[in-house]
Amino acid sequence: MDDKRISLAHGNGGRFMRELIEDVFARQLAASELDVQADAVAIELGEGEVMITTDGFTVQPLEFPGGDIGSLAVHGTTNDLAVSGAKPMYLTLNAFIEEGFETARLERIVGSLAEAALESGVRISAGDTKVVRRGEGGGLYLATTGVGVRLPGVRPSMSLIQDGDVMIVSGPVGDHGTAVMLAREEFGLRGDLVSDAGPVMQLTEPLLALDGLRFMRDPTRGGIASIGHEIVKATGLGVRFEATIPVREPVQSVCEMLGYDPYYLACEGRVVAVIAEDQVDAALGIWRDIPAGRDAARIGRITAAAERVILETPLGGERFLEELEDDPLPRIC
Amino acid sequence: MDDKRISLAHGNGGRFMRELIEDVFARQLAASELDVQADAVAIELGEGEVMITTDGFTVQPLEFPGGDIGSLAVHGTTNDLAVSGAKPMYLTLNAFIEEGFETARLERIVGSLAEAALESGVRISAGDTKVVRRGEGGGLYLATTGVGVRLPGVRPSMSLIQDGDVMIVSGPVGDHGTAVMLAREEFGLRGDLVSDAGPVMQLTEPLLALDGLRFMRDPTRGGIASIGHEIVKATGLGVRFEATIPVREPVQSVCEMLGYDPYYLACEGRVVAVIAEDQVDAALGIWRDIPAGRDAARIGRITAAAERVILETPLGGERFLEELEDDPLPRIC
Repeated sequence: MDDKRISLAHGNGGRFMRELIEDVFARQLAASELDVQADAVAIELGEGEVMITTDGFTVQPLEFPGGDIGSLAVHGTTNDLAVSGAKPMYLTLNAFIEEGFETARLERIVGSLAEAALESGVRISAGDTKVVRRGEGGGLYLATTGVGVRLPGVRPSMSLIQDGDVMIVSGPVGDHGTAVMLAREEFGLRGDLVSDAGPVMQLTEPLLALDGLRFMRDPTRGGIASIGHEIVKATGLGVRFEATIPVREPVQSVCEMLGYDPYYLACEGRVVAVIAEDQVDAALGIWRDIPAGRDAARIGRITAAAERVILETPLGGERFLEELEDDPLPRIC
Repeated sequence: MDDKRISLAHGNGGRFMRELIEDVFARQLAASELDVQADAVAIELGEGEVMITTDGFTVQPLEFPGGDIGSLAVHGTTNDLAVSGAKPMYLTLNAFIEEGFETARLERIVGSLAEAALESGVRISAGDTKVVRRGEGGGLYLATTGVGVRLPGVRPSMSLIQDGDVMIVSGPVGDHGTAVMLAREEFGLRGDLVSDAGPVMQLTEPLLALDGLRFMRDPTRGGIASIGHEIVKATGLGVRFEATIPVREPVQSVCEMLGYDPYYLACEGRVVAVIAEDQVDAALGIWRDIPAGRDAARIGRITAAAERVILETPLGGERFLEELEDDPLPRIC
């Protein structure tokens, strides 16, 4: 057997699988108290309501400027807990590995995952690996489940959203989507863009103290336009995005060149919040005081006028942002 | 777009994905209070230590006599909690769907998953779907994480195992592995074998009341032989399997025909328990009183004599059961 690549025997429950788990996963995730022998493990959650979320990851390429599928899995999953008002504490990890995958690359990705978990304050409490036949796996897919505990303060929910509320975002949108796209050889483009993937807990936790906070979400697949549509669907109110949505110049350029709309592109380290109008300045002040929220901006408002997602243009016009149909950019997360 | 097959647009965060989740997943899992809008959901766990486990599923074929990848995911994951002494309560579900997959088949599998969840008393609390390009997915992979609460009684653990303890199994071994194998066209075989996949809580919970209970495990990938090796690795003791391991006649026949050893084949509804010798009859009595444990049997003992896994043969000989190396049967779970 070639030790430099994953074989089907690495998934059979025998020696090779044990060695793979011990050498690649447990060694790097050891600080996380991963018990590779137990069928199930106990987790300590302390006081508070337990919250749970789960995500699958199929990003291509697996490694891109600013991250890889390992760190992305940690951030994507813990961020879903954070925007729900919870403190992420534990992750479980499933890896679907394609036969022939380079062991060194797997080690690198698991190392990056371990580092992101440390940075995000979560421990990997359980894991499983499956090996699928060459040609049946796209290299590596990950699935992670996050468990956390609800923090004190507002319980953000779409059901709290009211006519007149304001939407803010913690930073420029579309960086992750564009960075991953540029990393794909098929586009033949190069650029210095880096994914925004990262933890958002430092952005979400302080906002829970504002009683005007209604709702938070991280704009991943489908971007901020899709958050707009989710709000319209859930509340029957309309969303008016303003011409103030921050988009980095290189993101704007790539989008113009390829015909994409940055408002549909994924971020993996931003937060969109809906907040009562009289607390918008307080919220933006909190965010702008920390590096991750330096470029925070007001981006729109909730209105009962029309049950649509509308984008105001810089020259005073407006256009509808339709619900995403065809996929502009598959395998972005 | 062809509504009868999954397209990449079903994974993009837009309208098709929303409709897929609403029509196929939420509708069938609705009784499970799946909130398809929330990033994370609260779960009520009541008193007791929280336990967690996770599993990936890549079985081929996706549907086989006695189950499919959906019911298998529920049983495989909840059974890991049950053998650890916990009551399974919640599951999260990740689906990796290959572009072109038949929607009707997906509905059937999700329906079977919903039914198994109901039977096992667990609710699907969170989910995620990803669509991967044609040729990159093997049809459908699932990843499930199970959360439960530790039950009163013994806390089964390999660390409790002692020299002289006895091993028992709740029923015949190898049915699942053989049934899946016969369902594969490549073998050109037919048979009436049905997978043993099913919930084991009714088998594990009553044993927790026996203070001589040491350890339980469901013999999935790698079969009972691999449980033997895990025990040897963890304890430094040896495992002597006796000639009493129950194997159904058709399983034995298929294994002889194809050169497989049934002791390495997966079960998905059996429990192996290690128990103090003076409580073996009590444990077997409990199991034989319920239909799932009707064919329960003593299968071996723990011995300090040799740090090996040994199988006693009917004629008084013995042979080593080596740790699994090459995979006899990939994609069995």
